[in-house]
Amino acid sequence: MRAEVIPSLGELLSDELLHKTVIVIDVLRATSCMVTALEQGCAGILPVETVNQAKSLHVRGSLLAGERFCRKILGFDLGNSPHDYLGADVAGKQVIMTTTNGTRAIQKSLKAETILAGSILNARSCAAAAVAKKRDIVIVCAGTQDTFSLEDGLGAGLILAEIECLGLPLELNDFGMAMYALYSQRKGDLSQAVMACKNGRKLVKMGLQRDVFFCTQPNLYEIVPVLKGNRLVDGSIDPLMNYDCNLPKVKF
Amino acid sequence: MRAEVIPSLGELLSDELLHKTVIVIDVLRATSCMVTALEQGCAGILPVETVNQAKSLHVRGSLLAGERFCRKILGFDLGNSPHDYLGADVAGKQVIMTTTNGTRAIQKSLKAETILAGSILNARSCAAAAVAKKRDIVIVCAGTQDTFSLEDGLGAGLILAEIECLGLPLELNDFGMAMYALYSQRKGDLSQAVMACKNGRKLVKMGLQRDVFFCTQPNLYEIVPVLKGNRLVDGSIDPLMNYDCNLPKVKF
Repeated sequence: MRAEVIPSLGELLSDELLHKTVIVIDVLRATSCMVTALEQGCAGILPVETVNQAKSLHVRGSLLAGERFCRKILGFDLGNSPHDYLGADVAGKQVIMTTTNGTRAIQKSLKAETILAGSILNARSCAAAAVAKKRDIVIVCAGTQDTFSLEDGLGAGLILAEIECLGLPLELNDFGMAMYALYSQRKGDLSQAVMACKNGRKLVKMGLQRDVFFCTQPNLYEIVPVLKGNRLVDGSIDPLMNYDCNLPKVKF
Repeated sequence: MRAEVIPSLGELLSDELLHKTVIVIDVLRATSCMVTALEQGCAGILPVETVNQAKSLHVRGSLLAGERFCRKILGFDLGNSPHDYLGADVAGKQVIMTTTNGTRAIQKSLKAETILAGSILNARSCAAAAVAKKRDIVIVCAGTQDTFSLEDGLGAGLILAEIECLGLPLELNDFGMAMYALYSQRKGDLSQAVMACKNGRKLVKMGLQRDVFFCTQPNLYEIVPVLKGNRLVDGSIDPLMNYDCNLPKVKF
């Protein structure tokens, strides 16, 4: 099985995703929020690109969610902090979500056979769900405005380590090898690593340090958002979750 | 001082190089060859983009060098293996060089104030020469056809570690942080890491394993190719070389 990691949306070639499983990662904070929302029992998430699209899809009982410039959009029910979803009553409700990079990454990946939302929070279950599809895997780091973001690279490296734990021979592209090494080097202090990077520093400056801590907890949840039609719903696969992984072996 | 690492030529924005020092890295094998050629006493290297440009600049006594598809160009004196330069009589001669990615990276960096050629072979002296310019540093990984190549990332990480050894506070972009961690993780077995990556595997398959070994020797040479006019000549600065570096400190 081949697994590629793409550094940012600017390097994503949609036509190369045909017949593949894509894992979109936006650790700070879109995919971390998606996982958290589904964990809280939300009925599904509609990822859309623009604020207007989100508003036009809004119906009674659904929730509008999203951010621009890291802040909740005016008039929306929820922002882009996983803590927004922990406190709110999202159970059974549809969430319509628009974020700067995460939802755009999903839209750019639509040619893939399967699209999953990955994060540090659900890395293990995401790896298991991706492997079960038996297709080559492309991990898309959403990044920030077409530039690589460290936290997404750490998430990608963790997912690769979890795939390796499943015992499958894995052929990586060069960037995947680099992200695997990055994660191996920093796995002991993920929060600190993310706190030092660009988006981490920005959130800390805005007083949102707890979001960084929350989003850097490995394998907290078993939820795997998967795109069905235009909605993300839980696509986790329990049977494969019963494996144990201590230290991943270095493969390259 | 700020140091950025750019993953590949596709992500290089020329206008952002103004007033900066660029270090171009093409470990396999353009910049490794440039360093080796100057070490052997060649009078200077003219990096050009096309085979025809190279031929048009050729005069009696100068040498034509370069590769296409990893092979020496028909009728040229030298290929793209550092071993070509070790054996040949290049002392005092001008070398006109065209390679697929390395020379193109130099051409794309022409807006920078200073352009240096970096590699694993000359990382320490390259770091010292770059720091001496007292400008922000941009390390450009040449990559392969606009895609990131692991060996260039390892070279970038090593140069960052060497800059850090000079004791300067260094502000890194996210990709720089990732390359620093990559190098820290794999510094004990650089040859093996490069042998496993795409270009390394390709060279091994072509019987050029010794090139991989040669190009992954840290700080073998003190030469620093610097672009003066349209020629690369040695720009190493001896006085700053007298420092000792054991293990770089992790800064991020």
